[in-house]
Amino acid sequence: MRIAIVGGTGKEGQGLALGWARAGQEVLIGSRVLERALRAAESVNAAVAGTAATGMLNRDAATAGEIVVLTVPYDAHAGTLQDIREAVRGKILVDVTVPVDPEKPRRLRVPPGGSATEEAQALLGPETRVVAAFQNISYTHLAHGEAAACDVLVCGDDADARREAITLAGLLGLRGLDGGPARNARVVEGLTVLLMEINRRYKVKGAGIRITGLPNATADERK
Amino acid sequence: MRIAIVGGTGKEGQGLALGWARAGQEVLIGSRVLERALRAAESVNAAVAGTAATGMLNRDAATAGEIVVLTVPYDAHAGTLQDIREAVRGKILVDVTVPVDPEKPRRLRVPPGGSATEEAQALLGPETRVVAAFQNISYTHLAHGEAAACDVLVCGDDADARREAITLAGLLGLRGLDGGPARNARVVEGLTVLLMEINRRYKVKGAGIRITGLPNATADERK
Repeated sequence: MRIAIVGGTGKEGQGLALGWARAGQEVLIGSRVLERALRAAESVNAAVAGTAATGMLNRDAATAGEIVVLTVPYDAHAGTLQDIREAVRGKILVDVTVPVDPEKPRRLRVPPGGSATEEAQALLGPETRVVAAFQNISYTHLAHGEAAACDVLVCGDDADARREAITLAGLLGLRGLDGGPARNARVVEGLTVLLMEINRRYKVKGAGIRITGLPNATADERK
Repeated sequence: MRIAIVGGTGKEGQGLALGWARAGQEVLIGSRVLERALRAAESVNAAVAGTAATGMLNRDAATAGEIVVLTVPYDAHAGTLQDIREAVRGKILVDVTVPVDPEKPRRLRVPPGGSATEEAQALLGPETRVVAAFQNISYTHLAHGEAAACDVLVCGDDADARREAITLAGLLGLRGLDGGPARNARVVEGLTVLLMEINRRYKVKGAGIRITGLPNATADERK
C-alpha cells in the first residue's frame, strides 16, 4: 500500500512512517517544507533497511498516496485540509489530529465541530471518507517498534474506511477496533488528553488504553 | 465506611452495592420510592452473608451516608441533585451518571455543562466535592464479583475526593486511576457510549478499558 502521511515530519507522523516502513509499505512523508520532508524520509530509510520512503510537499504526498494519513497540530488542521482537499477526493483520510490548545496541551478542548474528525469530514465533503485513528498511540511505541499493549480505536461514518484503518493498525502490530460513527471520535480524541494527564501524574511516557472483555481476551484478563 | 447509593435500585447501583457489601462496607440504598429501596437492600442482604444494607428514600440515604454515590439516569440527574443538595453539603459526591439519550442510548450526547459531573459540581456548589467514577464498569462484573480487567478513571477538581474514589474502587477489587480535573469527565462519560458501541459490534456484554504502560504493568503488557 502507498501510504501518504501529511504533516508527517512530527513525532507521531515519523513514528507511524517507521512502523509502516517496517511492515514493508511504501511511505510518502509530506510537509509544508520540502526540505523537512526529505530529511524525515531519509531518517526512515536509514532506520529501516530496504525501504524507500519519499519526502514531498503535503499536497503532492496526498495526491500520490492511495490512503492519506493526517498528523498535524490542530492549529494547522483546517488549513492543511484546504490544501489537500482536491488531492484526497475519493480516498480515505485517516485523521490523527487531537484538538489541543498549544498553550495548554493537557486541557481538553472541544472544537466547534465536536471533534477534529467531524470537522475534517465536514470540510472535505462526502466524497472523502474520514476516519479517526492512532491518536492514543504514543510515538515512542511506534518509533521503537515495541509490541505495545494499546488498541487503536477507529471511528468514522463509513464502515469500509473503518476496516481499512483497522488494517493499517494491524500492519503496526496493533489491534484496531471498530468504534462506530465519527461522532465517537470526540471520545477517542479526548482520550489522548486524559492519557497525557495520566502520563504526568504517574510519571510514565507511554500510557495507552486497551479494551478488555472481547472474545480474544488476553491471558491477563482471564486470570 | 457508610456509603449511600442514591438511585441505587438500578443495575449499576445494585452492582456497586453488592461489591461494597462484599467488601464489608455499610451500604445505604436510596430510591425515590421507599418500597424499591427496601427490596433492593433485601436482595443485597440475601446475596451477601453478614451484611446489613438498608433501603431508604434518596434524601435520607444522602443524609446518612458518609460518602454519596449517584447512579441515576441522566434525565433524573438535575432533579435528584436538587433533592439531595443540602444532604450532601460538605461531603464527596461520586457521580456515575452518563449523559445518554434514553431514546438513542448509543448516541453520544454532550450535555450543556460539558459533562454530568461538571453539571453536578455547578449545581451543588463548591462545598460539595464531585468526582466522576465507575461509569465504565459493566454492572455484570460488579454483580458477579469477577476480577474484571477494567480500570476506574476518576476525575474531579479536588485531589482528596479523587483519592477517596480511588479507595472506593479498590474496595471493589478494581484499580482506580487519577484522571485529573472534572473537565476530563467528558471523556470518561463518553467512553461508556463507546464501550456500548463495542459491546454491540463485537457481541460482548462487558467491554471495559484498561490503562496500559503504568509502572505496575501487568504480565500481559510486558510480554
